[in-house]
Amino acid sequence: MPALLDQLGRGMTVDLAARVTASARTAVSRMDSDLDDWLDDKRRQPFESTVITLDELAEPQGWRCAPDTGNVEHHSGRFFTVEGLHVTTNHGHTREWWQPILVQRDIAVLGIIAKEFDGVLHFRLQAKMEPGNIGMVQLSPTVQATSSNYTRVHRGRPARYVEYFIEPGRGRVLVDVLQSEQGAWFHLKRSRNIVIEVTDDVPVHEDFRWLTLGQIRRLLRQPNIINMDARTVLGCLPVAAPADDPDGHGVFDGGSEPGGTHTMTEILSWFTGRKSAYELNARLVPMNSLVGWRQDAGRILPEDGGDFSIVGVRVHARTREVHQWKQPLLAPHGLALAGLVTRRIGGRQHALIRAEVLPGYRDTVELGPTARFMMNDYADTPADRRPEFLDYLLSARENVRYDVVQSEEGGRFLHAETRYLIVEADDSFPLQAPPDFSWIAVEQLMALQRHSYYLGIEARTLLFCLNNL
Amino acid sequence: MPALLDQLGRGMTVDLAARVTASARTAVSRMDSDLDDWLDDKRRQPFESTVITLDELAEPQGWRCAPDTGNVEHHSGRFFTVEGLHVTTNHGHTREWWQPILVQRDIAVLGIIAKEFDGVLHFRLQAKMEPGNIGMVQLSPTVQATSSNYTRVHRGRPARYVEYFIEPGRGRVLVDVLQSEQGAWFHLKRSRNIVIEVTDDVPVHEDFRWLTLGQIRRLLRQPNIINMDARTVLGCLPVAAPADDPDGHGVFDGGSEPGGTHTMTEILSWFTGRKSAYELNARLVPMNSLVGWRQDAGRILPEDGGDFSIVGVRVHARTREVHQWKQPLLAPHGLALAGLVTRRIGGRQHALIRAEVLPGYRDTVELGPTARFMMNDYADTPADRRPEFLDYLLSARENVRYDVVQSEEGGRFLHAETRYLIVEADDSFPLQAPPDFSWIAVEQLMALQRHSYYLGIEARTLLFCLNNL
Repeated sequence: MPALLDQLGRGMTVDLAARVTASARTAVSRMDSDLDDWLDDKRRQPFESTVITLDELAEPQGWRCAPDTGNVEHHSGRFFTVEGLHVTTNHGHTREWWQPILVQRDIAVLGIIAKEFDGVLHFRLQAKMEPGNIGMVQLSPTVQATSSNYTRVHRGRPARYVEYFIEPGRGRVLVDVLQSEQGAWFHLKRSRNIVIEVTDDVPVHEDFRWLTLGQIRRLLRQPNIINMDARTVLGCLPVAAPADDPDGHGVFDGGSEPGGTHTMTEILSWFTGRKSAYELNARLVPMNSLVGWRQDAGRILPEDGGDFSIVGVRVHARTREVHQWKQPLLAPHGLALAGLVTRRIGGRQHALIRAEVLPGYRDTVELGPTARFMMNDYADTPADRRPEFLDYLLSARENVRYDVVQSEEGGRFLHAETRYLIVEADDSFPLQAPPDFSWIAVEQLMALQRHSYYLGIEARTLLFCLNNL
Repeated sequence: MPALLDQLGRGMTVDLAARVTASARTAVSRMDSDLDDWLDDKRRQPFESTVITLDELAEPQGWRCAPDTGNVEHHSGRFFTVEGLHVTTNHGHTREWWQPILVQRDIAVLGIIAKEFDGVLHFRLQAKMEPGNIGMVQLSPTVQATSSNYTRVHRGRPARYVEYFIEPGRGRVLVDVLQSEQGAWFHLKRSRNIVIEVTDDVPVHEDFRWLTLGQIRRLLRQPNIINMDARTVLGCLPVAAPADDPDGHGVFDGGSEPGGTHTMTEILSWFTGRKSAYELNARLVPMNSLVGWRQDAGRILPEDGGDFSIVGVRVHARTREVHQWKQPLLAPHGLALAGLVTRRIGGRQHALIRAEVLPGYRDTVELGPTARFMMNDYADTPADRRPEFLDYLLSARENVRYDVVQSEEGGRFLHAETRYLIVEADDSFPLQAPPDFSWIAVEQLMALQRHSYYLGIEARTLLFCLNNL
């Protein structure tokens, strides 16, 4: 029996989960007694983001629609491009379509520096302006940088603190995993979610503060403060089971085989089965070959209303590496919903997870919320074509556990807001799930999240919120 | 403490590991006292595989070089295609190249039915002919079928026993995971490695036998008997730690956090770091645009000698679903080596694993053997450009643990043989490893193998051999 505990690594992970949990229970820190004032101050700074035509992007920063392909690209060939995608699939109602998609081949670092103060883990977050943000400034990881940033293609300063993540030996790695981002809008995109704990002094800078997870948890109850990248990185940290865990032993760390209504073998088999059931062919094609899209008034937009357009923005900022720039952004048409049904089964918290097929995923399927939907389609979509459980989620009242609008990545999307909704179902909610759905225990989801490409970005945000209720 | 054991799933996995281990220790089974005779008999059957020109493939089975692209494809659009690949990368000596590559978009089922006889797990293997096999017939999984097989594109019989794997509820799933295949020769290929345990009677057929893992282990000491697909599927089963495990508790199941000289967090971080370090762009292009390749005498071959050609074969068989057919195959130029250095560190068996960058991988890097190399290049490759540790492996003598030539998939490759070599280093072998290498404990590798796209196909074969020494 003691042998089971006597394993290198497990001890450390249990220890880390306990330390993360202690940080989550620390709502006040002497490191940041004026946190709200500082944040208000940052958010009052005069930033400006103006929608311009794609033609206006050309000078002097050098984004253009390439004459042969129509792809939107930077003259340096770096950053990202907007290209066309042709999709055929045997999944869902629509079996073939064309769409623009963001292509970013290099791996961005989403890095957070962690450090103990007064024995409690703090995380270094940055008040960062992004052109597409609601409120312009949100709290982001210590570093959000593509290799274009640190190789200085845009001729600005290298991202502050980036050396902690690209030079070895600057600290102890707590988490380091590639995760996908929006599979509907990004082609094969993944980012490096990394947390490094240091013991040495870290240079101060007024845009950065040390926060406990308890402070972050409080801000997570407000809309559009904790940005997408901070949510996904912090969400990868192990957490200890809640005090009311009836078994009293759960550590959501992916270490020991976590239990649930299905075994891990059953869950992995279901996931493999969903991938095997669905074929999806997604091929990059020139933007000017897209069927159902047109360029009009300096945007690229769908002919039928659709879910998003591609626009240009001009940004003026005083705290970014480059003080002013223009760039393309993907502008969603209205609010998205990402809703999760949870239920206690056998004393353990479970989530009803959907195997979601998206054209930008590396392997066709990742785990999504119970329902994900662009809300502007709601009125026009007949009930029998709405995602399963959507109406249930939207009609929930007293059993709503979380209901807050958060932003998606403001460096690529313009005002992309998602209503994150967690509804706790009672015992009358059926355990039988349709083929694309599975009840997965929270600790099982945490175990899967140690690895790449199981949980999609919205499921990761919801899991982070659920663990921080 | 008991709570740690009281977890659904873990109990089952430990139990399964014990049962797999018991099967491995059972060298004789009453189910198959005449195994060798049966196998000899199967291997004596008159099969014929003849190299023909690619032009000769056209009639009547309908493979052709498409006039516009030069891609080799079947008229039905199914099975697989041979297309061109253009690769640019920042990894290795060669930074840009063109090559043909096999493209197979649907997920093949590699399925084995397991059943207990006399309390011991037996596995149903098939004596199966493949056109590219050394010896024509090798032991393969119960089912090796693409959806082209079971949707009957080739108008033959559906693959025998395939219903066990595509109809739900036929048995209990023991393993079910997508794994990659040769990333140098396949574009994004993955197969479903699945083992299902049944209790009901299974229809008999003379091409199939029930074998214990102990019998399979014995055959694995002989060259070219246990085929690649059987190796990868069986290798995914958990195994119990060897009796000399000093801690006496290891179950190589991926359940509890397994220990090693590096923690799992460190290993995952190293893997993430290797993926972040290397950019690789691999884009499908028409075959007739490949630089450095030509079509000559009915083959597609490299201008400089190179590693492989694309050829046609004509097959005559009496036991396959279709009795005679023609198809293209990839023909490697000579023997490959896949060598693994192992070492006991802190009482645990470790392997020196290389992060291998290959153009057909879904995410750039998977874990490979210590060295992998096409041996016909050996004499011409100066020592300083040979893979690290290659010369060490080739000069090993008394510490060779395994040294057997096995075949790669005979349905796609013509006489593709790999010398699988395991060398156990002593304590004088340096623990310090170059950046692309890491010492990983065997039980850690087994834990990673529960998930897709960590271990490449050669590393999986070597791990299977190592666990069955």
